[in-house]
Amino acid sequence: MYTLYEYPPSGNCYKPRLLMHHLELPFERVTVDTQINETRTPEFLLINPNGKVPALKLPDGTIVTESNAMLWYLAENTSFLPKSRLQRAQALQWMFFEQYSHEPFIATLRNWIRYANKREEFACEIEAYRPKGYAALDVMEQHLESRTFLVGESYSIADIALYAYTHVAHEGEFDLSSYVAIRKWLNRIESQLRHIPITW
Amino acid sequence: MYTLYEYPPSGNCYKPRLLMHHLELPFERVTVDTQINETRTPEFLLINPNGKVPALKLPDGTIVTESNAMLWYLAENTSFLPKSRLQRAQALQWMFFEQYSHEPFIATLRNWIRYANKREEFACEIEAYRPKGYAALDVMEQHLESRTFLVGESYSIADIALYAYTHVAHEGEFDLSSYVAIRKWLNRIESQLRHIPITW
Repeated sequence: MYTLYEYPPSGNCYKPRLLMHHLELPFERVTVDTQINETRTPEFLLINPNGKVPALKLPDGTIVTESNAMLWYLAENTSFLPKSRLQRAQALQWMFFEQYSHEPFIATLRNWIRYANKREEFACEIEAYRPKGYAALDVMEQHLESRTFLVGESYSIADIALYAYTHVAHEGEFDLSSYVAIRKWLNRIESQLRHIPITW
Repeated sequence: MYTLYEYPPSGNCYKPRLLMHHLELPFERVTVDTQINETRTPEFLLINPNGKVPALKLPDGTIVTESNAMLWYLAENTSFLPKSRLQRAQALQWMFFEQYSHEPFIATLRNWIRYANKREEFACEIEAYRPKGYAALDVMEQHLESRTFLVGESYSIADIALYAYTHVAHEGEFDLSSYVAIRKWLNRIESQLRHIPITW
């Protein structure tokens, strides 16, 4: 049995939850509330010395951290990991893009505005991060205009990694109405077998 | 023949250069100067729509972006990519840690202080990022105290990804003198066959 240490509203925590549901892997869930710094307790730092969720305990007790690394682990030998060497690199390319150019802006604004009640405290950062979040959405929109999924025309862990925070970007007050290709792609993902919402 | 589009002082650009040298893969180098926004020209945005170096052109003309994705591509079927499923996930765990918790602080300070001459402009950010950079070094130090390399006791792309900016952290005025395990690990990497310095 897998154990997922998670803060339920987090998109990073939703990624492995969504993939394990697709794969019909049973797992236990343990809530770790990042808003009250439960990721920084001595007990949790033994699980992840970097003090972040998600953390995934494998059936043998080994801990894997970093949401996109656990997606890769879970997806090996399934249809969610592309078969060709080039497509595996392209999946990772999108997953590193997500963690460097997308999540730090889109997820951070969602957290400050919707969950942490820090809109006033981080007013300057919110203004600075907003165009960087839209720049990431622009890159995705351009790519998806001629494609059904991010890599190899089939649903993969690259799509799960980018779906996690893109589909709730409006909670950080990003307006997706002009992003036609992204919105079609979101619908395509939501129609996949055994899809679950982030609130599941 | 591979072509590497790079800004030579960049640690991200050094990663694929170092690995291709280890693997004895011939490659051409094209300088793209990030300090004068050459990554934002219409010509370069056709190569990488996300406007960043490095970008690696494969012999068939396909472009791979994101330094850690190209490390993975180059390392497949070599000793630089761990053989077991768990160790592959652990390598990615460290590589995502690098891009999210290490590079944004350690590389950014090095650039502002040493290369972009923006110490005054970003004084507040430098103060805010400094402890985050040290926090990343603390996580590495704790892990390396009982290990020779980051994953599976052999030199891998995880080590290359973290070496790139750790070994030049002093250029961002990080003091590594108390990080004994990290300094031994840096020496171990520098003694590998066909190692090249970042200035190569």
